[in-house]
This record gives sequence, structure tokens and C-alpha cells, in this order.
Amino acid sequence: MKILLVYAQPESKSLTHHLAREAEIYLQKQGHTIIHSDLYSMEWKAVMDETDYMDRQFHERLSFIQESSHAYSTNTQTADVEREQKKLKEADALILIFPLWWYGMPAIMKGWIDRVWAYGLAYGYKNAGNSYRYGDGAFLGKRALLAVNIGGPESEYSPRGINGNLEDLMFPITHGTLFYTGMEVLPTFAIYNSVGIDKPDLEIATSRWQLRLENLFKEQPILFRKQNGGDYPDRHVLSDDILLGKSGLSVHIKG
Amino acid sequence: MKILLVYAQPESKSLTHHLAREAEIYLQKQGHTIIHSDLYSMEWKAVMDETDYMDRQFHERLSFIQESSHAYSTNTQTADVEREQKKLKEADALILIFPLWWYGMPAIMKGWIDRVWAYGLAYGYKNAGNSYRYGDGAFLGKRALLAVNIGGPESEYSPRGINGNLEDLMFPITHGTLFYTGMEVLPTFAIYNSVGIDKPDLEIATSRWQLRLENLFKEQPILFRKQNGGDYPDRHVLSDDILLGKSGLSVHIKG
Repeated sequence: MKILLVYAQPESKSLTHHLAREAEIYLQKQGHTIIHSDLYSMEWKAVMDETDYMDRQFHERLSFIQESSHAYSTNTQTADVEREQKKLKEADALILIFPLWWYGMPAIMKGWIDRVWAYGLAYGYKNAGNSYRYGDGAFLGKRALLAVNIGGPESEYSPRGINGNLEDLMFPITHGTLFYTGMEVLPTFAIYNSVGIDKPDLEIATSRWQLRLENLFKEQPILFRKQNGGDYPDRHVLSDDILLGKSGLSVHIKG
Repeated sequence: MKILLVYAQPESKSLTHHLAREAEIYLQKQGHTIIHSDLYSMEWKAVMDETDYMDRQFHERLSFIQESSHAYSTNTQTADVEREQKKLKEADALILIFPLWWYGMPAIMKGWIDRVWAYGLAYGYKNAGNSYRYGDGAFLGKRALLAVNIGGPESEYSPRGINGNLEDLMFPITHGTLFYTGMEVLPTFAIYNSVGIDKPDLEIATSRWQLRLENLFKEQPILFRKQNGGDYPDRHVLSDDILLGKSGLSVHIKG
């Protein structure tokens, strides 16, 4: 299988790079092929703007949806975006590795999503509006996994921890960005207390990471409800037959 | 009062710029002073990296926490970051205006947070670790408001809508980024169906926006629980006395 590793940390001695290197070694040992997107080394352009469209369709007013659609369908995207999309299309799994900054991805990785997740591909698939998304789409059949390094302790990210439950904080990425495109998303891998982690704890974390990598294609994904599976019969709102009276992000997960 | 408007859209004809202009006109009429951070016009550097630290404390390995702390405390931050922090310190309210991209901020705005929210100021306040946060901190007494333009319909962001409830999706920003620093955060202002919005709908949205601006300093903020208010007595986990057995992001809001 082919696995695309995307990571966002400039320091090669960081835990993020450690996880990327371990993933490469460990997955290659299992016979897989690794593709890299080391965003800082690539000097990835984070900001989506008008220079992303080499053949503007409309000059009067910049609409990202229109220009992204036009650029994608006419092969006039910039070379850097095309290259990343090609890697994604080839990959059987995508692993995003990053330090948690303000409860989300570093800007450089958010900008990788903003620019690579084009209209006609990641959204507006088949130019059919929102017909194919959340469990269906261009990336159906691929797996996705977040690996996150977190300075704080696990208790603060537990179901009643002050920061919010980690999986709820990641929902805009796991559900709204990855599952959106059809990918199966695995539970988030996290290393807590990551700042100045000592050798014994690093070894434990590395073993946990290897186990997750070993099961990359076997593990049960998060059971997000599919848009077109019958759970959202009207205006994409959860059916009254399911968890009536309940709300919160977890209603979108089965079981 | 002084109000800092931070917005992230390159197109001056966009709804984002419309909201920024309306805010300026309307708030000035009420006697307030407006400070702007038009991130695209400013060509804001989105990516936090080693060039942000003009006088590195440690050269062996880049630690953002250490270097941010050192740069903030020794006044060796870059001029662009210092300028934004000065604006923030002067402001009585912060309004972030942006189009919703992949259920979050555009990368350029995430990068504004990543770089401006320095150690010693937005986190690690008074160099006291995590002592002052979530309802306390350097920005105590300031108000904050998100104004978000959303392509999709409101139903999809309702409490049981497929995308997730809007306020839950914004939690990493409202709670984890703004309330974290001590700010009082108002409920998110959203314009749905924003793509190609017609004139009558734009007028309705503009009136709604003016009403929110009028009440900027009067409106009830989201009642996030304070870290040091007694609700998190042990390891920053919500007390068993509160909503026992419940979880999800909403447990961190009173009432």
C-alpha cells in the first residue's frame, strides 16, 4: 500500500519528525511505500489567494469556489497543488502529523487543506454540489489518521476535561475535512505531555505509535454516519428516529 | 471604546469585507474607534517558524514555547507580531471576520493566532504556567466576537445538522483561543447561504449584523465555565457535582 505522510514542524528534532520517521521505517518494514509532504521543508504556501489561479475564469470578483472549480477542471492549478493532489490520489492512506496549536493544526497545514482540497475533488465532487460527501467522494476507500503532539496532560482532554474532549476538538478535521471526502478516519493518536518528553515516555509513546501503524488498514474507523446512509432524511438533519432530543457532535457517530 | 477588526479575505467585494466596512461605519457612528487588521492586504506571514525569533535563546533545537517566551519577555519579537499585540492590548473588543473554510479559519487567520498569541501573553501569562487561563489572563475585560460567512444552509449547522452545531465547531476558537486568554466571547454571528447572496438577503443580514454591533458591549457572553471558578477542582476535570455522567463540549457552558 502507499501511505502519504503530511507533517508540519520545522524542527527535525521534534516529536512530529520523530513520528514521521518512525512511520516511514515501520511501514516500509511491512512492505508499504511512503510518500512525504514535509510542509516546512517544502516551504508550502499556506495562504490561498488569487495567485492560485493561473487562468482566472472571472476577473470582476474573486470567488474561490468558482476559480477552484475552473482551475481543477481545466488543469490550470498551480504545480504545487497538483503535486499534492497526485500524491493523495495515489495514496491508500493519509497520515497528518502535527503539534496541536490552539486546539487545531498549525497554519501551514490548514493552508495545505485550504489549497489542496479543491472544488470538483474534495468538495463539489462530480460537480454535483453536496451530493457526494460524508462517507462518499473522491477519496472513498482511503484511510486517514491524525497523529497529534499535545503539550498538556491527557486529563484536560478527557470527556470532561477543561479543554474539551480531544476527539470533539478534532471533529472539524476528522469529520468535516477527511470523512467529508469519503475517507475512513481512525481514532486520533495523541501524545500528551509532549514538551520535553523523557526517554522512557518516548519509548512508550513510540510503541503505541507502532501498534497503531501496524493496524492502519485493520483498525475500526470512527463510525461517522454517512450522509447518504438514511440517517439524514431531510435537509441533512439527523432523523428523529435516532437519539431523539440529543445533540452535540457525538450524535454523528454510530453506537 | 476601541475595537480591533481582524479579517481574512483577499476580495474587497466579498461578504467578509462588507461586514468589516459595516462594522467600521456603524461602530464609528456610536463613537467607537476602529483598528484594522486586513490580513490579506497586510500580506500577513501565516507560518510560524524560526525567523520569528530574532534573538534565539536556544540554537540546538527550536522550541516554540521557549523562543516565544524569550522573544516576548525580551522585546525581540518581529515588528509585525509586536504591532498586532499592541493593537490587541489597546482594544476593548476583538472581532474576527472570516469565511468558513473546512469548518475553521482560513490559514492566514490561524497563522495570525499562532504568531500573535505569544507565550507570556496569551498563554503562560505571568510565566505562571496554566494558572491564568479560561476566564482569566492578559485579555481579561475584553470582548470577542466571531463573524462567519458560511456557504451552506443553517439547518446543516443546527444542533442535529450533519456538519455539527456551529458553536461546537467554533469551540476551539471561542473557548480554546479567545476565552482562554480571559476574553468574554459572544455567541457567533453567522451568515448562511453566503455564496451569491442576493440583495434582500444581504440587507437582512446587514441589519442582523448592526444589531449585534449595537449590543457588542451589552450582550450576554457565552457562559463558559472559568478554570478558577471552582468547577474544575481536580486536574482541570469538571467536578462530579456538575452534570454527572454528561460529556461533550457543552458541559463547559453554564446553564
